Amino acid sequence: MPEAADLSLLFSPRSVAIAGASANVDSPGHDYVRSLQLAGFSGPIYPINLRAPEIAGLKAYPSVADVPGAVDLVISCVPASAVLDLIEQCAAREVKFLHLFTGRFSETGDAGAASLERRIVARAAERGVRILGPNGMGLYHPAGGLSFRPDMPLEAGHVGFLSQSGNNAMEAITRGHFRGLRFGKVANYGNGLDLTPAVLLRYLGEDAETKVIGAYVEGVADGRAFFDALTYAAARKPVIIHKAGRTAAGAKSAASHTAALAGSAEVWSAALAQSGAYEARSQEHLLDLMVATSMLGTPRGRNAAVVGGGGGRSVQSADAVEECGLILPALPGEVRERVREKAPALADWIRNPVDQSILAGSGLSSNGLLEMMLQSEAYDFGIANVGEDWFFGRPDAADRLSHACNRLASIAKESSKPVAVVLGPTETANREHRAAVDAVRDSFAAQGIAVFPSVERAAWMMAQLYTHLIGGKNP
Amino acid sequence: MPEAADLSLLFSPRSVAIAGASANVDSPGHDYVRSLQLAGFSGPIYPINLRAPEIAGLKAYPSVADVPGAVDLVISCVPASAVLDLIEQCAAREVKFLHLFTGRFSETGDAGAASLERRIVARAAERGVRILGPNGMGLYHPAGGLSFRPDMPLEAGHVGFLSQSGNNAMEAITRGHFRGLRFGKVANYGNGLDLTPAVLLRYLGEDAETKVIGAYVEGVADGRAFFDALTYAAARKPVIIHKAGRTAAGAKSAASHTAALAGSAEVWSAALAQSGAYEARSQEHLLDLMVATSMLGTPRGRNAAVVGGGGGRSVQSADAVEECGLILPALPGEVRERVREKAPALADWIRNPVDQSILAGSGLSSNGLLEMMLQSEAYDFGIANVGEDWFFGRPDAADRLSHACNRLASIAKESSKPVAVVLGPTETANREHRAAVDAVRDSFAAQGIAVFPSVERAAWMMAQLYTHLIGGKNP
Repeated sequence: MPEAADLSLLFSPRSVAIAGASANVDSPGHDYVRSLQLAGFSGPIYPINLRAPEIAGLKAYPSVADVPGAVDLVISCVPASAVLDLIEQCAAREVKFLHLFTGRFSETGDAGAASLERRIVARAAERGVRILGPNGMGLYHPAGGLSFRPDMPLEAGHVGFLSQSGNNAMEAITRGHFRGLRFGKVANYGNGLDLTPAVLLRYLGEDAETKVIGAYVEGVADGRAFFDALTYAAARKPVIIHKAGRTAAGAKSAASHTAALAGSAEVWSAALAQSGAYEARSQEHLLDLMVATSMLGTPRGRNAAVVGGGGGRSVQSADAVEECGLILPALPGEVRERVREKAPALADWIRNPVDQSILAGSGLSSNGLLEMMLQSEAYDFGIANVGEDWFFGRPDAADRLSHACNRLASIAKESSKPVAVVLGPTETANREHRAAVDAVRDSFAAQGIAVFPSVERAAWMMAQLYTHLIGGKNP
Repeated sequence: MPEAADLSLLFSPRSVAIAGASANVDSPGHDYVRSLQLAGFSGPIYPINLRAPEIAGLKAYPSVADVPGAVDLVISCVPASAVLDLIEQCAAREVKFLHLFTGRFSETGDAGAASLERRIVARAAERGVRILGPNGMGLYHPAGGLSFRPDMPLEAGHVGFLSQSGNNAMEAITRGHFRGLRFGKVANYGNGLDLTPAVLLRYLGEDAETKVIGAYVEGVADGRAFFDALTYAAARKPVIIHKAGRTAAGAKSAASHTAALAGSAEVWSAALAQSGAYEARSQEHLLDLMVATSMLGTPRGRNAAVVGGGGGRSVQSADAVEECGLILPALPGEVRERVREKAPALADWIRNPVDQSILAGSGLSSNGLLEMMLQSEAYDFGIANVGEDWFFGRPDAADRLSHACNRLASIAKESSKPVAVVLGPTETANREHRAAVDAVRDSFAAQGIAVFPSVERAAWMMAQLYTHLIGGKNP
């Protein structure tokens, strides 16, 4: 088994040069300089530009050779035809890592471009320069002051992410951040020719900062190396793989995007199951599993305690839970007796899922029921529908919602069993309602509570966690 | 076949009395008065309360008997024990329709409550008073000035909706409105004992204001009458049924919610297919199909033209389309030649789905490609990924996004083929980005453009429309 490559200076360089840096604010060559500045990169940033004396307030240099200090990472925005020369410049200055944002290689389907790409990879290997890309956005690592776009969130965390697609990486970070994920080391590797997904995965598998790994993969050139690395990483921490390009059309699309060899969907699915990784089949599933594995423990069984929302939500929750292969045990005697003490009229009526609307005026709340149910042996995990639409019919809705959600967060944190919260989707034109939901979502995120936009997704995710625990395939 | 009952005075009463109206602003008896006021109900509103002289600024009356004018509709917030007397009051004043928000009947599982419910239904029938409910939020009909909660949107439209669950009705209206649906006649019928879902469905089937009907159903007492009414309505306009309570746990939950007899999931699914209705299995699907049938024509074939978003989105779009049984024909020669004129380097590279990120600087846009593709015989419909995350990396993002979406809306409106737009999910903590997305979503909604939050849901929906056209089952 190969040793993991040391990529610490890739993700945490002490200095960065941007080849093809530009004074044009509407260009990638400008964005990379600004992104580092905005992400608080603490070392020197060297814009490289033949003519401009200064870019984004920083002194610019005509070539890598002219930079005054050592350079750990060069980001390339130069055209494909200028890359071979750039490699020579890097080698001369003992630059270890070259990230090629530069694209238009094998993904174009053009034989000349593919040939140039092969020469670049060979030349870099000869000169001891390791290549990330080509055709990728590169690196995002808030703790290291790295970002690949000026508008990315900057809170640092422990979720690692690898993506063959740049736009998908940006979407996953933005959407994951909204749901409380805080990222550690992220790489968009594009065509992934030298620093392959296998190399990156093995590194993140060993990396102490990385607690969970998500990955969006269109295809890999060396399946054996990839699955070895995946098995290695998945034995150490949760790894979720979204394999795209599963269909014939998807595979063709992947070829023209990152020159990826998509492979058979069935083979991938079987190999992913065997590797110990989670398989996601959409960006939604990828994010749901990253949220779940980062924020929740694993349920020890299939028995769901479900509360909250009105009666319609209860019926829909029951369908969602059972259709995922999970179980909804009836309220056990001890819980029913505790209900009887406070609200005799409800004791024989109330069920699992708990319909919040019948509790009004009883002195009981869905939070109270959740707490009782989580204490019972009958249940392995909880799903709590916030039911925010109900609150918005009441006076002081924002205060009541906030109060109920604070209590829910306490219950979820104090329980030894995993609790998924269902909040949203925040599809309302009412700006005040949205602001109230945003506020409680932010509070859940800050407390590390896993939030899902529908009960169907919460139930699916719990089924994934449990099935993974018992070593089964995705239901 | 029974004639449709005349429910025009139910949905468009000339005057309304609220029995059990309350001065307590945190009570349903207050909400119904305020809801009518805020919805602009143009006729007299009569709060009924034994003691209060005035409620929400309106003169109150001790009983229905004391009201000075005729009353078309009485809304009941009185306790279950007071309903028999209320029916007598209604009969004495020749009130046609009594909506019983009042609950705690058969749904509680209590034999005495169920017996009272039967006596209420029998008494109302004897006295010629028709009952909506019990245990339901009742009526929402913006054009008639009716609403069941003070915070509901008030734009009037042509989407009819029936719901066994009140909270589900509120969610469907709020979320549907956000996506551009504008509602006509909506009824939450709860236990649905007299004005059954069959009666309501037949009425909406005939109603000229209602162009599309959605329904959330947990179970029906008389399956034959329901499916007769459904077949009747579905022959006249699109009808979408979300049948909940499909699982054993869901059926139990439905019994304690609305005393519904859920029935077998397989029997329901087969009967829905035979009736000509669309079957939804979640609120998301229900809303997606209501959006689609309200705003889109039906694709005449399976051939998808897909554009927009980066390369990763293209690969995911291809998977989503093919996994729904749709087809992605390659770019036909005439389109490829038009590309070659403007951007020779792209002509042999570009594919369907069109990767927006390779078009930069070419003079071509994904909108331009979409327009060319929709003009070709090779394609039956379009799916356009807005790819808003890409815009947010650029200066003047909001302006560019708005410009691109305006052009996309024009193309969608001018094409004879249906075009679904993919925008969102708006899961970002960046408030400016959200505001920009909201602005374009509002603009799409105002223009009647169908918008979906993921390409998977857009593709699923197109597959449903086509499969429905050819009389097949849901894929």
